[in-house]
Amino acid sequence: MKIDGMPTRTIRIAADGRTVEVIDQTKLPFAFEILQLRDVEDAADAIERMVVRGAPLIGATAAYGVALAMADDPSTENLNAACDRLIGTRPTAMNLRWAVFEMKSFLERLPVEERKDSAYRRAAEICDEDVEINASIGRNGLGLIQEIAARKPQGEPVNILTHCNAGWLATVDWGTATSPIYLAHGRGTPVHVWVDETRPRNQGAALTAYELGHEGVPHTVIPDNTGGHLMQHGQVDLVITGSDRTSANGDVCNKIGTYLKALAARDNDVPFYVALPSPTIDFSLTDGVAEIPIEQRSGDEVSKMTGLAEDGTVRTVEIVSCGSPVANYAFDVTPARLVTGLITEAGICEASLDGIAGLFPDRAETGR
Amino acid sequence: MKIDGMPTRTIRIAADGRTVEVIDQTKLPFAFEILQLRDVEDAADAIERMVVRGAPLIGATAAYGVALAMADDPSTENLNAACDRLIGTRPTAMNLRWAVFEMKSFLERLPVEERKDSAYRRAAEICDEDVEINASIGRNGLGLIQEIAARKPQGEPVNILTHCNAGWLATVDWGTATSPIYLAHGRGTPVHVWVDETRPRNQGAALTAYELGHEGVPHTVIPDNTGGHLMQHGQVDLVITGSDRTSANGDVCNKIGTYLKALAARDNDVPFYVALPSPTIDFSLTDGVAEIPIEQRSGDEVSKMTGLAEDGTVRTVEIVSCGSPVANYAFDVTPARLVTGLITEAGICEASLDGIAGLFPDRAETGR
Repeated sequence: MKIDGMPTRTIRIAADGRTVEVIDQTKLPFAFEILQLRDVEDAADAIERMVVRGAPLIGATAAYGVALAMADDPSTENLNAACDRLIGTRPTAMNLRWAVFEMKSFLERLPVEERKDSAYRRAAEICDEDVEINASIGRNGLGLIQEIAARKPQGEPVNILTHCNAGWLATVDWGTATSPIYLAHGRGTPVHVWVDETRPRNQGAALTAYELGHEGVPHTVIPDNTGGHLMQHGQVDLVITGSDRTSANGDVCNKIGTYLKALAARDNDVPFYVALPSPTIDFSLTDGVAEIPIEQRSGDEVSKMTGLAEDGTVRTVEIVSCGSPVANYAFDVTPARLVTGLITEAGICEASLDGIAGLFPDRAETGR
Repeated sequence: MKIDGMPTRTIRIAADGRTVEVIDQTKLPFAFEILQLRDVEDAADAIERMVVRGAPLIGATAAYGVALAMADDPSTENLNAACDRLIGTRPTAMNLRWAVFEMKSFLERLPVEERKDSAYRRAAEICDEDVEINASIGRNGLGLIQEIAARKPQGEPVNILTHCNAGWLATVDWGTATSPIYLAHGRGTPVHVWVDETRPRNQGAALTAYELGHEGVPHTVIPDNTGGHLMQHGQVDLVITGSDRTSANGDVCNKIGTYLKALAARDNDVPFYVALPSPTIDFSLTDGVAEIPIEQRSGDEVSKMTGLAEDGTVRTVEIVSCGSPVANYAFDVTPARLVTGLITEAGICEASLDGIAGLFPDRAETGR
């Protein structure tokens, strides 16, 4: 999608054909900076520090992290070490595990001297596949928006609420939750997006608002507390969020607070859809609420806030009463019963064992 | 309650017997400063700028605002003008209207020369009544906490989640939602409070955490998005919030986001109680969701964040992507069906027409 009118992807190879370049998302929305990743440790660090974030982009970065490791030392020992290092960065991320295992199983069968080039090629394919998956999610979700638009008076926007950033900055391009929105906007269907601020880390206010703004999509940033009130008063037609990991029965693990929006949507008969690439489906789990481990991150993400000071510098301020303990659960799990449907690259399905198995019969059968 | 070990109230008369002193709550938790209100305009401004906030404290400040007006000019014309000015400051606040009408109807019957002293006396009574009401709320709610404690292994804390600040800083003393908590803590029942950060304005992280800390009550600050996850995993035994306005049928208007917590409580069978002084009950309304007007405040409260910078100065930073519009609804309404019970100074009742009328038959009958 576009930044200052220029088509951009979140990850690319530098002119040297080896270094990996990513947008430093910790600097957004106040500065647009490219960070160069030169080895697997840079890649792991970028994932840990959330320089890159969002399940698909984490997966793509991890794939290139393996490629960087192979450029340094293509031995099987180093392949295993690199994969272990990358897997350990974010416990909840499903694409991360998928991408790393994909790279590993592909590379370990190859002779050592072919691994470097093959790794870069496979990582590039994973990126292109992500773009194609997201474009398909957009095409599959478009109808939901168009149906609502058709029921409204001509020209009235479809109001879509989203939580966190499941936008193109969370993927290689298009985004997941935003993909149908960008497609609808591009085709002239009027849309307006309620952007949850998304505490902590504020990915909505910082990233989703940033990318919608650069794409020219009408939107309004709201505190995470606001969605229920808006739904009560008919101001939300549709909720679309992303997912970091979805169990085989359709329980959706996503940024903390997603569950609360799903409850409000149910209470007000607002359709609640989750857009997700199939690599985020974990077919080994059938009870997401009980089984998905929830990452706890540093309390600093809650107690400190970074923003643009009046003097134009980016500053971090402490916002919690001094000495008060803080807890920071990064995700929650929305039970499948609250999810109207899953928008995947293979189509829309019910959030249930049968619904998911219907779209992905082979993976459902093998449980992988 | 205590600040740095010193028993303190949120509002008092200065040594000159005329000036009204309040804690400047816009400076908390980073500085404890007393602001002097010298005329009705100072009082109105303090309410508008949220130097004082919380339904009961707004009422107390408005009462003293009328007294300040009477000290300047006790004419009926000035009484009316002062009341109009004060009523217009915060549209949602029920105690504000109650306190101003109480002062007005009391004073307009008195000869002009008696109004000043009588106004100060009546305002002081309103403050003392608030303290007594809140102490009663504490006594009435204490049993809920003790019952849960009795079911838990000895010494395990009762986990109570609260939203916004319905603490003593929102009242003259004790608070509403916090009153049973302070009482339980004081009597040795182990409690732990999950404090919702409470965006925007962060009254939880800034004020509730501050007062619980100074009172020595164990607590943890969490983003507003977190409560649902905690309830799903059995980490919340009880929710207690305050209310700015409650309709005769038990619909509860409170800080935006309260409704989402009530939904999560219902979904996880966690009792959801609202602590409120009866002056916040609006007997003229029987459908709070449809009838209570929701104040919209400046978007700056969402897009800017104030905190303590590393150099020890208090700074405000911009946290929303540049140019993105922002919406700021201050309250939402939780339907009575989601409220387990109302804790009032007269006892606990069901959140329903019959429940409320049972405790307050005279007001229910007259509708005022």
